[in-house]
Amino acid sequence: MRTSNYLLSTLKETPNDAEVVSHQLMLRAGMIRKLASGLYTWLPTGLRVMRKVENIVRQEIDNAGAIETLMPVVQPFELWEETGRSEKMGPELLRFTDRHERPFVLSPTAEEVITSLVRNEVSSYKQLPLNLYQIQTKFRDERRPRFGVMRAREFSMMDAYSFDIDKAGLQQSYDTMHDAYCKAFDRMGLDYRPVLADSGAIGGNGSQEFHVLAESGEDLIAFSSESDYAANIEKAEAVAPSGELAEPTQDMHLVDTPNAKTIAQLVEQHGLDIEKTVKTLFFKASDQVDAPIIALMVRGDHELNEVKAENLPQVAAPLEMATEEEIRELVGAGPGSLGPVGLKLPLIVDRSVAMMSDFGAGANIDGKHYFGINWGRDVELGQVEDIRNVVEGDPSPCGQGVIQLKRGIEVGHIFQLGTNYSEKMNCGVLGPDGKNVILEMGCYGIGVSRVVAAAIEQNHDKYGIIWPDAIAPFQIAIVPMNMHKSERVQQAAEKLYAELTAAGFDVLFDDRKERPGVMFSDMELIGVPHTVIIGDRSMDEGNFEYKNRRSGEKSAVAIDNIIDHLSSQIA
Amino acid sequence: MRTSNYLLSTLKETPNDAEVVSHQLMLRAGMIRKLASGLYTWLPTGLRVMRKVENIVRQEIDNAGAIETLMPVVQPFELWEETGRSEKMGPELLRFTDRHERPFVLSPTAEEVITSLVRNEVSSYKQLPLNLYQIQTKFRDERRPRFGVMRAREFSMMDAYSFDIDKAGLQQSYDTMHDAYCKAFDRMGLDYRPVLADSGAIGGNGSQEFHVLAESGEDLIAFSSESDYAANIEKAEAVAPSGELAEPTQDMHLVDTPNAKTIAQLVEQHGLDIEKTVKTLFFKASDQVDAPIIALMVRGDHELNEVKAENLPQVAAPLEMATEEEIRELVGAGPGSLGPVGLKLPLIVDRSVAMMSDFGAGANIDGKHYFGINWGRDVELGQVEDIRNVVEGDPSPCGQGVIQLKRGIEVGHIFQLGTNYSEKMNCGVLGPDGKNVILEMGCYGIGVSRVVAAAIEQNHDKYGIIWPDAIAPFQIAIVPMNMHKSERVQQAAEKLYAELTAAGFDVLFDDRKERPGVMFSDMELIGVPHTVIIGDRSMDEGNFEYKNRRSGEKSAVAIDNIIDHLSSQIA
Repeated sequence: MRTSNYLLSTLKETPNDAEVVSHQLMLRAGMIRKLASGLYTWLPTGLRVMRKVENIVRQEIDNAGAIETLMPVVQPFELWEETGRSEKMGPELLRFTDRHERPFVLSPTAEEVITSLVRNEVSSYKQLPLNLYQIQTKFRDERRPRFGVMRAREFSMMDAYSFDIDKAGLQQSYDTMHDAYCKAFDRMGLDYRPVLADSGAIGGNGSQEFHVLAESGEDLIAFSSESDYAANIEKAEAVAPSGELAEPTQDMHLVDTPNAKTIAQLVEQHGLDIEKTVKTLFFKASDQVDAPIIALMVRGDHELNEVKAENLPQVAAPLEMATEEEIRELVGAGPGSLGPVGLKLPLIVDRSVAMMSDFGAGANIDGKHYFGINWGRDVELGQVEDIRNVVEGDPSPCGQGVIQLKRGIEVGHIFQLGTNYSEKMNCGVLGPDGKNVILEMGCYGIGVSRVVAAAIEQNHDKYGIIWPDAIAPFQIAIVPMNMHKSERVQQAAEKLYAELTAAGFDVLFDDRKERPGVMFSDMELIGVPHTVIIGDRSMDEGNFEYKNRRSGEKSAVAIDNIIDHLSSQIA
Repeated sequence: MRTSNYLLSTLKETPNDAEVVSHQLMLRAGMIRKLASGLYTWLPTGLRVMRKVENIVRQEIDNAGAIETLMPVVQPFELWEETGRSEKMGPELLRFTDRHERPFVLSPTAEEVITSLVRNEVSSYKQLPLNLYQIQTKFRDERRPRFGVMRAREFSMMDAYSFDIDKAGLQQSYDTMHDAYCKAFDRMGLDYRPVLADSGAIGGNGSQEFHVLAESGEDLIAFSSESDYAANIEKAEAVAPSGELAEPTQDMHLVDTPNAKTIAQLVEQHGLDIEKTVKTLFFKASDQVDAPIIALMVRGDHELNEVKAENLPQVAAPLEMATEEEIRELVGAGPGSLGPVGLKLPLIVDRSVAMMSDFGAGANIDGKHYFGINWGRDVELGQVEDIRNVVEGDPSPCGQGVIQLKRGIEVGHIFQLGTNYSEKMNCGVLGPDGKNVILEMGCYGIGVSRVVAAAIEQNHDKYGIIWPDAIAPFQIAIVPMNMHKSERVQQAAEKLYAELTAAGFDVLFDDRKERPGVMFSDMELIGVPHTVIIGDRSMDEGNFEYKNRRSGEKSAVAIDNIIDHLSSQIA
């Protein structure tokens, strides 16, 4: 491609409304333009990258034995009613009616469509296993679209759905897709991790997310310092502290704490060790509990894990904090002074809290705390559960090493759905014994457009994007210096462009009449990994100049040797 | 691909609700399934064909210098208000509001989005010419979707938009795209014609449609018997009859015709030559005319061309026939007895009518006609225009040969828009003289999903589809006979499959435990162009059997020679 025949559309200034680096660089590098909130047009440079990601995904998912299909973006609303997701999805599921007033939705995913297809097309266990996928536009009407294509409303997703006769088959389909994801992200040259994920409301046996590691990631990932263990912090188990509960050394005593509304104030004003404090949090209880509100306790220096809390059968989902009014009515005190002593509500305590002795907590009297509380003696220990986020240094639940935290961007998810959808939609086949068997399903997604943004979050510097070779919009840039004044430079550039293109490389030939500085900074901004600079001075010595975008290193390469040199540099 | 790992989904019975052959065969061959009215899921076999069509289109449009982008399916309604098309498109433009009650549409096309992009991104004539395209899902809320993917609501379209500084540039962009279309359809192996098309309401300088010729086509195409001339019948000029207007030989006389409500009845009951009769048709007039209704006359054996009629400035668009009530009020007679004599309305006569003498027409009195009418003597000749459809045998407007008619399916359209959109949306650049120049636009579409159906309408027989090699879902089928009983057959089939796949062929290896008859008819139904049959009997003689889907010919080919033979057969 010649820049003169191309729409480079780079920007010098960072647009005001872009908060994250990938969004800023995608705008500056001429990859995307905003059409409306959460809706982006992919300019040529952006689309070239997205197509490379898409093709790698397609090849690896094909290799895994899945078969490509294409389902409509517009789906009948009735299908979503069959599974009850029309309700569950809420306003993210965009609904509308057609000219005949029939209700439809814009597809955010396709479990219903594929299950309805398979129940019609597949009748015998002999046709299984079956894994059908598509790479198709999706739409989620996010309340607050942000970060460019990272959290857009319209996006491109690969979504695959496996159908098996039994759980062993599902496990095999799931494992095959896990491997295919690894191969795809490996090929893209990304630093990523498959991590254990919460299965949430959908249930099922297992679920893993694939995260591209980047400091700007929205998710926290817990790793073991010694093993392969990795889990989304939502899912990572905080293991029970080892050892025995220490014997009491203090009497429980009421302390005036009129100015201590927070743990930090309590620690500062009363000289208490933060590890001797607790937070008592009140949430709406579920139907399973004979009280409107349930109390959850975590140590003062720990954070409640909302996903773990929501997964407790005693807690209402979605998680909803009790209001101050509700708390006052039940307890007689406000949020700054709550605690377990004398509490007439069901209580769930974190594993760490269960191992505390001589600790301080609100007295359920405004402006007062009890210090020196001990379980059993002063208050009955509630139900013990893992309800906190792990922190760095916690022992890893795998039994080896300690927890370390890193940030990640979720780009893929694999999921054992089991019979969740197939049962509701009556998707079964005749089994070997001639009886109907409801199918075991898995679902698998890769956010194709999101991978592009995540790759940038992981691979950039102050000059712009640093693409891995496999997903770069162009592998090689040819930058001729003052080509329009030097016939020799022009001829050499044209010749190299023709040769590299013929050899199958993806080349951007910057044939604009621009100053070299402008050309260099554009090629750096859009992140071309390998640049050949052609100028009279180096040609006098029989050389071109080669520059590596990632290392920043420049080297003189003999003209005759340039194609070999580039081949050796490109993975 | 092995059929055992594939979703073949062929059907024995022709589904009831499919009216046209392509729809029937796409269902039977397991290419598509209906999700809802006008919404289809593409099954693996269908998608393989569509992707091949898409890739050929992409390559040729790329070669033409256009640059690929991707615009959202969901577009803000405001953009459509800028050009006034929000009104014009009517209910085919599907509108809805998002969760914040902001209005959007599902994109049926993207002139507005691309023009708004270019007005922001392009500022100088130096960046021109520019041609941007996408291959993207489109949606038109057809009142009555039918014929499967031929007239679906959701479909895949390549849409390109060229931007030039002047009309000469537009002409060049247009010609380049014309050639690219020809190359693409040539490569697909389709019998197609570029034909002159009506520019309709959009105006502009020129427009051509690309039609795949097929007896089932919805459109009539007029060809010259002697030249390359081809035009949609909507557009094909009916040239004025040569020679001079014949002198009157009869007096005009009133005839009682109580039972002649139609031309056919008039001819039969009164012995009139049909070429001496006329039809007088009444339509709503436009604002340009000082009457509510205008009369149009064509010869009794000719058809009014509604597109030509609608394009007349005197006629209201869209074309609307006057009601019998309106006619009676103005003329005093009903539709069976109308004519030019004594008519107090503006009159437009077809070129053929203007050359008639001694002709018969309604007398504007119920149950009566005048015979022996002559222009000038009996009634003033109205405005003469070309308002009829050409018929076979008409002289071709190119001056060579006569008109022949064939049926076609429109699969592409190229269009010189001029400044129609760029003016309304203020899309201009700085010209060489530093002044703002409004850009000259062209737009270009190929119905990618429709091509698939059109190819089938053109290429099928009673056994199923006959794909051209370039767009076949698989180029080669391997059909082993009783493979599960003969190890030799199985080994030979596996070896050939491995070799052909390694050589880059697209192969379907029918490894099902099915009777040969079932396998043959499936391969014929889905239209694989080349089949290798492997059986013990032919192997005894050192041969495989080769079958050509199109010719139906079978031949024995030496086992060692099979790959060379297939290579020579595949274009």
